[in-house]
Amino acid sequence: MADTIRILGIDPGLRRTGWGVIAAEGSRLIRVAHGVIAPPVTAPLPERLLAVCEGIEAVITEHGPDEAAAEEVFMASNAASALKLGHARAAAILAPARAGLPVSEYAARLVKKSIVGTGSADKAQIAAMIEILLPGSKAEADAADALAVAITHAHHRRANGLKGAA
Amino acid sequence: MADTIRILGIDPGLRRTGWGVIAAEGSRLIRVAHGVIAPPVTAPLPERLLAVCEGIEAVITEHGPDEAAAEEVFMASNAASALKLGHARAAAILAPARAGLPVSEYAARLVKKSIVGTGSADKAQIAAMIEILLPGSKAEADAADALAVAITHAHHRRANGLKGAA
Repeated sequence: MADTIRILGIDPGLRRTGWGVIAAEGSRLIRVAHGVIAPPVTAPLPERLLAVCEGIEAVITEHGPDEAAAEEVFMASNAASALKLGHARAAAILAPARAGLPVSEYAARLVKKSIVGTGSADKAQIAAMIEILLPGSKAEADAADALAVAITHAHHRRANGLKGAA
Repeated sequence: MADTIRILGIDPGLRRTGWGVIAAEGSRLIRVAHGVIAPPVTAPLPERLLAVCEGIEAVITEHGPDEAAAEEVFMASNAASALKLGHARAAAILAPARAGLPVSEYAARLVKKSIVGTGSADKAQIAAMIEILLPGSKAEADAADALAVAITHAHHRRANGLKGAA
């Protein structure tokens, strides 16, 4: 029997950072928990970054993931959006890195293709598919995207032969 | 006699993050220390972010600044540069935020204007002026920019009437 591996998926954003933890036992995937971190929109940038980082740290403490995965650099159409996304991603990625977890990155198109079968799937399609793959999740869009990244990692880590993979 | 306040200035970058600590005693400014954090260029992004964050944390532990200041969002000309800069800034800003230090942000033009007298000064002019304002610094460009941000904060915090200001 394969070891159970817990995977933390992260969908970073300065306004809303989605997270989802799944347990992968061989090819069987179970939802452990999911949620959204929404820092106060009026707070100064350093406080919002801290809220994202500490929010993810709290998730790691509570749910004890073994590995983490985040969406790779989505190429924002303008520099202002890219800058904000960069801040949020760094804050989210730093938490697992500090905790010593390996952090994998997956392109948004690959995540969509892994979950829905097409790289151009929209958020509603992702959320619907997550409800099928992880029944009872009822995850809102940002958390569903985070669970999607975690599932993508579960599939690819087996292919990459990480420790504990079936 | 005014209290002495230690200020940490940060010039964030994924390749090189400059830092500088000054002591401000009323209008008198003294350089305490400065340096550059250069994460291994071949390391994965999470490790490079961790190197920046932990590097700044080590500076805070060693030199005990009371307040921190960083250059505000420089509007990169393209989204890819902005994304990288966003990652680096977040990693650098999170360290003082985690340590409970107030973090102020200053526009690059304001920093240049405060130090050289013109918002269009180049890095060499900043470095030359830092050597005059803080004799013996001999700071390379990135660290000189960080000391420049710290000096800018020293000037503006007095105007803003923060605690301990002269």
